[in-house]
Amino acid sequence: MCQLLGMNCNVPTDICFSFTGFRQRGGATDQHSDGWGTAFFEGNGCRLFLDPEPAVHSPVAELVRNYPIRSLNVIAHIRKATRGVVSLENTHPFMRELWGRYWIFAHNGTLNRFAPRLRGDYRPVGTTDSELAFCCMLETLRDAFPAGMPSLPVLAELLEHLTAEIARHGKFNYLLSNGEYLFAHCSDHLSYVVRQAPFTTAHLLDEDVEVDFSQVTTPQDRVAVIATLPLTDNEQWTVLDKGEMAVFRDGERIALA
Amino acid sequence: MCQLLGMNCNVPTDICFSFTGFRQRGGATDQHSDGWGTAFFEGNGCRLFLDPEPAVHSPVAELVRNYPIRSLNVIAHIRKATRGVVSLENTHPFMRELWGRYWIFAHNGTLNRFAPRLRGDYRPVGTTDSELAFCCMLETLRDAFPAGMPSLPVLAELLEHLTAEIARHGKFNYLLSNGEYLFAHCSDHLSYVVRQAPFTTAHLLDEDVEVDFSQVTTPQDRVAVIATLPLTDNEQWTVLDKGEMAVFRDGERIALA
Repeated sequence: MCQLLGMNCNVPTDICFSFTGFRQRGGATDQHSDGWGTAFFEGNGCRLFLDPEPAVHSPVAELVRNYPIRSLNVIAHIRKATRGVVSLENTHPFMRELWGRYWIFAHNGTLNRFAPRLRGDYRPVGTTDSELAFCCMLETLRDAFPAGMPSLPVLAELLEHLTAEIARHGKFNYLLSNGEYLFAHCSDHLSYVVRQAPFTTAHLLDEDVEVDFSQVTTPQDRVAVIATLPLTDNEQWTVLDKGEMAVFRDGERIALA
Repeated sequence: MCQLLGMNCNVPTDICFSFTGFRQRGGATDQHSDGWGTAFFEGNGCRLFLDPEPAVHSPVAELVRNYPIRSLNVIAHIRKATRGVVSLENTHPFMRELWGRYWIFAHNGTLNRFAPRLRGDYRPVGTTDSELAFCCMLETLRDAFPAGMPSLPVLAELLEHLTAEIARHGKFNYLLSNGEYLFAHCSDHLSYVVRQAPFTTAHLLDEDVEVDFSQVTTPQDRVAVIATLPLTDNEQWTVLDKGEMAVFRDGERIALA
């Protein structure tokens, strides 16, 4: 199983702490050694670090762990290949542009007999079911709203419908972001925690590291962290239900209904 | 003036040597301190490192200099902002997907009164004339060949025509690659050198570093390096003419006519 990690904040925040534990799942504490990637939005721009090497041995991962890139939205992925060979073009997250914004997508799960007919606006470069699903989603969104992004409730409704269609083909846990919103869909495993004042000390599950967030935050800071499995052993993580989609903005979950 | 650096090879080659000199132009030996970026193709995949910080101080540039990523096609850019603020979304190179391949583009120069009407298949995320030109080029290519990439002579002819149209608006030195071909267009400054057997020692202009390529190559290796200004002071660089386009594949320039 691949591992997903997302972060959505109200002030630019670095992901060094969470990445420290997450990275251990790329070949050390778990078997996801078929590459990894991380996308950091900064304003409308996006930095995408990809490496087909195991995260635990990757010099690029070492940089990401040590260089505090501050971002409002981050999506990271460690891959256990099920469809598509281990190669750079099959490494998540994937990036495309829609409505003049970059969109980032990472997927955990396998889709079976998933062969949508695409018109060609977005074509997969690699051979994963994941990138194909991403292209299918973007084409559908563009078709429905050619002029630009609709309101969030309208967008979320179409995404939920489309996601349910695709999820009929298998496991479709994913994280999707345009730099403002972070959409998280759970097929079987996805949890999140919202850190806000009063901040406490968090302790990683995968490595004996802890951070006292009260020392590195201001009272207004709010950070949502979303992961396949909880990353810390002393915080209250919310487990998403099967088929549930959560949308985050400014570090909090937004009610859609 | 921004600085462009491209590399096109017949075997995967690292760009550490050329990048060492090139990077010095990002705030040390020259005044191009408004960010930098480098794209490395590996197979159909592409790694894109972007940093709005000066290249000479950037931890990401330090990684690129020291981590020998081997690639057949590399495009690097150091920015001196003329249009668009200094920000990640305005940092070259830019990446989009066309015909199921990633395309990478970096530009040196400024376009005036350039406001093409785009249908919206490719929309700029940032505010540079460069990204707008790239989007315009991709939309035109897709319109002309919706099914997929045509033969190289046909593609190059359309690109030359389109480039001439855009270049009427100002300086349009650029590098463009889909991971197989590297297109280089000269408005006023662009030079290249092809390194092949018998290999010799090259000495950087911008830093007192030299490499004896005969020690790190095989007799079959061939590498074309393209740069705004020559990077070495003891090799024979070919200066492109104004309005000239060169196409490289497998480390050599291809005759188009």
